[in-house]
Amino acid sequence: MASGLPDTFKQLRTLVTEDSKLELSLADVKMPTPGDTDIVIRVEATPINPSDLGLLVGAGNLSTLRNEGTKDNPKLVADIPGAGMRAMQARLGQSLAVGNEGAGTVVAAGSSDAAQALMGKTVTGLGGEFYGEYRMLNVAQVMELPEGATARDGASCFVNPLTALSFPETMRMEGHKGLIHTAAASNLGQMLNKICIADGVPLVNVVRKPEQEKILRDLGAQHVVNSSSDTFMEDLIKAIAETKATLAFDAVGGGPLAGQLLTAMEAAANIGAEYSRYGSADPKHVYIYGRLDLSPTTIPPGVGMAWSAGGYLLTYFLQKIGAEGREKLRKRVMAELKTTFASHYTDEISLAEALDPETLQNYNAKRTGEKFLINPTL
Amino acid sequence: MASGLPDTFKQLRTLVTEDSKLELSLADVKMPTPGDTDIVIRVEATPINPSDLGLLVGAGNLSTLRNEGTKDNPKLVADIPGAGMRAMQARLGQSLAVGNEGAGTVVAAGSSDAAQALMGKTVTGLGGEFYGEYRMLNVAQVMELPEGATARDGASCFVNPLTALSFPETMRMEGHKGLIHTAAASNLGQMLNKICIADGVPLVNVVRKPEQEKILRDLGAQHVVNSSSDTFMEDLIKAIAETKATLAFDAVGGGPLAGQLLTAMEAAANIGAEYSRYGSADPKHVYIYGRLDLSPTTIPPGVGMAWSAGGYLLTYFLQKIGAEGREKLRKRVMAELKTTFASHYTDEISLAEALDPETLQNYNAKRTGEKFLINPTL
Repeated sequence: MASGLPDTFKQLRTLVTEDSKLELSLADVKMPTPGDTDIVIRVEATPINPSDLGLLVGAGNLSTLRNEGTKDNPKLVADIPGAGMRAMQARLGQSLAVGNEGAGTVVAAGSSDAAQALMGKTVTGLGGEFYGEYRMLNVAQVMELPEGATARDGASCFVNPLTALSFPETMRMEGHKGLIHTAAASNLGQMLNKICIADGVPLVNVVRKPEQEKILRDLGAQHVVNSSSDTFMEDLIKAIAETKATLAFDAVGGGPLAGQLLTAMEAAANIGAEYSRYGSADPKHVYIYGRLDLSPTTIPPGVGMAWSAGGYLLTYFLQKIGAEGREKLRKRVMAELKTTFASHYTDEISLAEALDPETLQNYNAKRTGEKFLINPTL
Repeated sequence: MASGLPDTFKQLRTLVTEDSKLELSLADVKMPTPGDTDIVIRVEATPINPSDLGLLVGAGNLSTLRNEGTKDNPKLVADIPGAGMRAMQARLGQSLAVGNEGAGTVVAAGSSDAAQALMGKTVTGLGGEFYGEYRMLNVAQVMELPEGATARDGASCFVNPLTALSFPETMRMEGHKGLIHTAAASNLGQMLNKICIADGVPLVNVVRKPEQEKILRDLGAQHVVNSSSDTFMEDLIKAIAETKATLAFDAVGGGPLAGQLLTAMEAAANIGAEYSRYGSADPKHVYIYGRLDLSPTTIPPGVGMAWSAGGYLLTYFLQKIGAEGREKLRKRVMAELKTTFASHYTDEISLAEALDPETLQNYNAKRTGEKFLINPTL
């Protein structure tokens, strides 16, 4: 173990209390002692992904957010509406650490060769609890960044890159021939376009603004449809008919979009087909992997009978493909870190700033093109 | 071929026209000549199932239904709203026969031994086009009814019995341990209770009226919850926790019910479990096999990530289990025809009466306890 490390460090925590309050604070936690195959990372860059916000903010009503602590030692409090408390039951009273992934310098290592080899190196890791000054992980949960890559370059090596890579992999595993992706101009969506273009996978991008269409067309995307357009359904059906896309990954989740995707897949499948009272028999699926819209998902009749929709979690996919499959994907991420998998951050903030009410409202808005990075060394 | 058969016979037809009209009529069709392995059935009993009404009525607005023909030779016409016409595109201009299943006497047979053996026998068949005076089918599509069973006894041997049997089969095939069923007091639901009690399959019945609760409790059902009750969600979660039911078959389709089932499955899975930010990892599925409610299906957040929902079609299940599996289920239906699989009809009507506007409104209302049988010999 390296000398000079503090006995305790700051870690961001989220807590739901019995009296229906969300509390966000910086806890002082004890510096852990690494086991043989563990390392301690000084966290220098950790992104705020939509998947982190689900845990951080939960069902809190952010219009009631206030700071009951100080600027440097904040304690944010928000009320949780009655309806939201049902989903929060299982986490009541537990002070939870946040932050799926991040990167930094290895400042302590266990006695194993694998751990010792990483001392002083810049690594990136997946494993939760990254919103803190330090994070201990097993060497199996981290990757050394390539020469010349900074912690900022490597902060987002897992969630978005592996999720983007998992979409065409899932498409092949489940027997589909093309993909649909929504909220498609996101960081993840841009990675997906680069992957699909490189690998020759037909992809229909769904966005909701003209400037998002432009971002994707500039990347070389062939099929981009705008859900705000009057001709959205016609455009979508046409793009699906051309690509034979019968598998969608939807980040929006709530509202009519998932149902519109299934309706359009069914309509495209019926073009030129003989009438069947039950519709097309080709399986059509929408995976909901995000909930940018927290209203209920609505699926109308008119989607035929061979439709399905369901939740999608990267973890389940990574379990399914096994160690060899995971290694293959990780190698590709490292090889294309500054090209395909480059992330662009618009804001870099400290841990205390992450708990500034106005700043929190800003990153929780998840605006296209905006991406926040926490740098706990600031 | 038997002598004495007419050259033509009446057959009920449904047609969607280019000018957005639904037209229902009785066509005169040519008596077919059976091939070697075909038989001709004089149809004496054919039920009106919800699955028949989808084809018969389609997107027609029945409040505009009028008879533009005569009483004995009706031509019912209804307007189809603009929104409904998209789903009707594939059947435009095609005069389609209706009626999934039925029973009657074999009055003509092809030269094969299998066909000849059925001459004069009472048989039941599946294969569409049963709403007519005669129906030709291959011997493989029919079953001879047991001694003493009438056409009325055997009219509904396929759709409801095989669907009910398919639910526990699917449960086992897909690794679930218990079932949830909605609109559970239906003919099909009653069969399902008898099957699940006999086979020891845990079943949660969801109904919406106290009298429906009583029907099922009188059959011996252990878990019956009422969706109209103030304590519906609590009752449902408790029943699911007790049965470990993670697979639902939903006949309602539209509205909040499918989402409530998934929410309750997730809540039941989390009772006593350690908190996971993504919810329970046990797969939870709702198959939507009917659309008693034609409004969109709504699925709220709070269902975790390991949820899915999708369409269910008996045909796909029967294909999946192969010839041997199908034969096993058919044998059980024949063996338990007057017990487990007995259907109760409240109304028996002629083909012309089936096209009486008021009668059509009545059977299209699909009220619990009401079931219509068409007898084309009347």
